[in-house]
Amino acid sequence: MSEYNDVKNAVEKLEIMQKKMAAYNHATGLLYFDSVTVAPKDTTAGRGQTMGILTEESYKVFVNDETPKLLEYLKQNEEQLDEKIKLQVKKLDEDYKKISNIPMDEYVQYNILINDAQSVWHEAKQKNDYLLFEPYLNKIVATVRKFATYLDNSKNPYDVWLNEYEKGLTMEVADEYFTALRAELVPLVHKVMSSKKKIDDSFSYKNYSVRKQEKLSDFLMEVLTIDRNHCNIGQTEHPFTINFNSNDVRITTHYHKNNLLSSMFSVIHEGGHALYELNCDDEYDFTALSGGTSMGIHESQSRFFENIIGRSRSFTNYLYPYLKKMFPVQFKDVTKVMLYEALNKSQPSLIRTEADELTYSLHVMVRYELEKRLINGSLSTKDLPAEWNRLYKEYLGVDVPNDTKGVLQDSHWSGGAIGYFPSYSLGSAYASQMLFHMK
Amino acid sequence: MSEYNDVKNAVEKLEIMQKKMAAYNHATGLLYFDSVTVAPKDTTAGRGQTMGILTEESYKVFVNDETPKLLEYLKQNEEQLDEKIKLQVKKLDEDYKKISNIPMDEYVQYNILINDAQSVWHEAKQKNDYLLFEPYLNKIVATVRKFATYLDNSKNPYDVWLNEYEKGLTMEVADEYFTALRAELVPLVHKVMSSKKKIDDSFSYKNYSVRKQEKLSDFLMEVLTIDRNHCNIGQTEHPFTINFNSNDVRITTHYHKNNLLSSMFSVIHEGGHALYELNCDDEYDFTALSGGTSMGIHESQSRFFENIIGRSRSFTNYLYPYLKKMFPVQFKDVTKVMLYEALNKSQPSLIRTEADELTYSLHVMVRYELEKRLINGSLSTKDLPAEWNRLYKEYLGVDVPNDTKGVLQDSHWSGGAIGYFPSYSLGSAYASQMLFHMK
Repeated sequence: MSEYNDVKNAVEKLEIMQKKMAAYNHATGLLYFDSVTVAPKDTTAGRGQTMGILTEESYKVFVNDETPKLLEYLKQNEEQLDEKIKLQVKKLDEDYKKISNIPMDEYVQYNILINDAQSVWHEAKQKNDYLLFEPYLNKIVATVRKFATYLDNSKNPYDVWLNEYEKGLTMEVADEYFTALRAELVPLVHKVMSSKKKIDDSFSYKNYSVRKQEKLSDFLMEVLTIDRNHCNIGQTEHPFTINFNSNDVRITTHYHKNNLLSSMFSVIHEGGHALYELNCDDEYDFTALSGGTSMGIHESQSRFFENIIGRSRSFTNYLYPYLKKMFPVQFKDVTKVMLYEALNKSQPSLIRTEADELTYSLHVMVRYELEKRLINGSLSTKDLPAEWNRLYKEYLGVDVPNDTKGVLQDSHWSGGAIGYFPSYSLGSAYASQMLFHMK
Repeated sequence: MSEYNDVKNAVEKLEIMQKKMAAYNHATGLLYFDSVTVAPKDTTAGRGQTMGILTEESYKVFVNDETPKLLEYLKQNEEQLDEKIKLQVKKLDEDYKKISNIPMDEYVQYNILINDAQSVWHEAKQKNDYLLFEPYLNKIVATVRKFATYLDNSKNPYDVWLNEYEKGLTMEVADEYFTALRAELVPLVHKVMSSKKKIDDSFSYKNYSVRKQEKLSDFLMEVLTIDRNHCNIGQTEHPFTINFNSNDVRITTHYHKNNLLSSMFSVIHEGGHALYELNCDDEYDFTALSGGTSMGIHESQSRFFENIIGRSRSFTNYLYPYLKKMFPVQFKDVTKVMLYEALNKSQPSLIRTEADELTYSLHVMVRYELEKRLINGSLSTKDLPAEWNRLYKEYLGVDVPNDTKGVLQDSHWSGGAIGYFPSYSLGSAYASQMLFHMK
């Protein structure tokens, strides 16, 4: 005998539960956003306490005696549900099977750990002090590995996490994909490197004031048709996009005084993420279906805008007069062709977010190899920087001068996002396939 | 027979409850802070939903069957409690008697109303469109009046709210205080006005770039010994201070290009609030005792720094060389004496936060009279702007040119803070008494 005798009432309960979870996500997301944008430096402890309490409450809203009964009842009455509710039930059912296996206390402690780790990573990156961050990363890796067994004990832990960010992705698939990609990419990169044609992009490393770069960001967001009444831009150590709902999206960038293109491509990349969120149907808001269909598809939008639009001739034609006017001194001798070539210059380098289209996936492969070994226990966090540097030399031929420009460059691992990086490369591939079919 | 047989266990429950309430306060406080600092304009609805859900959860944490039993048990075992816990119980007991009388649904709806009203007030002020805001203020006044009856049905509603911000304050006391103050102030203001000595502060209305004013804010915060690792500064339409705990405080200011002293005194004023919070004992954090002892005492700190320090000769001596160096063009012909006189110039004006020490309380009296009549039903929100303008003419002798510089200037009413304004005047008086006893 079921407690639920009325589908309408059960659907209402389902909606209330999802709205509550969304409210907690909004709050904890905003706590994170605050911490990396405007919060004073030494405020991590109080925020951690709040994070812990709110994640515990949020966990209880979802994991309790009632939810499985509710989901079961709705599954049994599936034919009476409309398509969106059916999908919500399916997603929540999958999520429940995973989350309910994680003991609440471990779930809460992990969220507090992440809050602390993100703050420590920030300091470590600024101080070029990997050892400061290492104990936190070590705990994160151990927890992520353990949680993988909670989520699906039948799979390899790294496969579990690949699947979380891109459903169906496994090491087997990823290995095949990256092997094929590498076989094509590496000779091409070598060919480009040995070409007699040298592209002069030195103008892009002149002095560009942050104030003017901010204006450039405004211009780019306007060009991307991002509605500023629903999306704004902030500054963080590492650029990212966060959405509280499809009408409230924030992107961030990092301005470098001596690098015009770094923030420019960050804004276009994050702008692609923002457009995806802003253009999702409002009806998915406050449900388990919000936030896009997968991280690979999310990255397909960011990478589409970054590469296929942002590095195109048409975009260069549009951008050139603006830059020339905004930066008359720096662009004094720069022609439209020079700008186009600079936007498309291929050159193995240190920083993933600044990498060109061709070498970008090599950066991802480094991270993929390292994550795989970290999670599967064949690499310790202590040995990580040396391995990072070795692989950068092997894959990209560059010497990593310090950890700030090496293993500490990305924020993902400090946030527990292990298994995320392949999404960037998949997203780039999806974007190209989309272009192919659009043509 | 009680459910509690162990004081230690009961105290632990009390602490957990207070920590949960503090976590919700942190989250809703941050949602508010976000909304007035960096949030995109059209994001009020999603935030309102989150606010509604979190205030409901927070309400339930406090108002439930268990809390009265817990408080009763602790009161019965008072002799076993240490002083701080005793005070927590006392405060929570008082709060419970009030909050539990407000039906949860009304409590939640009011918080959603406030979220909306603050956003509408902001737009109304910028557009000089009082009618946009009026329906919201009307609802706020009605709710505040109704809630007063929930809090204490035996008192006049305005007395209930005066008491909320400054314990023991009543209209009787306030009337006596303001009458005495007015009797002294008005002739003094007239005397100053008719003095042959004219103070030239025109230099303070020259063009001051926001960027340089930001640097001045940094300087002021350093002079005030505000620890920037625990307190930072943002920009908002209306300056304020918010504390998430005693280690995480934020102040805001509003830069006006053609007014050096407006933001300067805002920073010093809010800096005083911040210092109070930052220097509270950490042990009060996450309890019902956090946030200072009363709003009058809070304002005594802000007003002490604003007036007694900020307008002193010693401070002028310290400030003058900095301003002269930072603004060489604007300060070309400005002497130290001219600066001191400008900081202390008395002149009836339109904006409370920019008012001099002498005329300041007249601004408060206008609001006090209007609030009293709004809450007690003898003034409608429709007639409010005309009455505002009439009283400004009567009390301060100035003509209010528009509602932006009139009834819409302060954010307090949009946040439901009716009964707060007298705290500013009391705080100024407390500050003077503190100085008197320090001397």
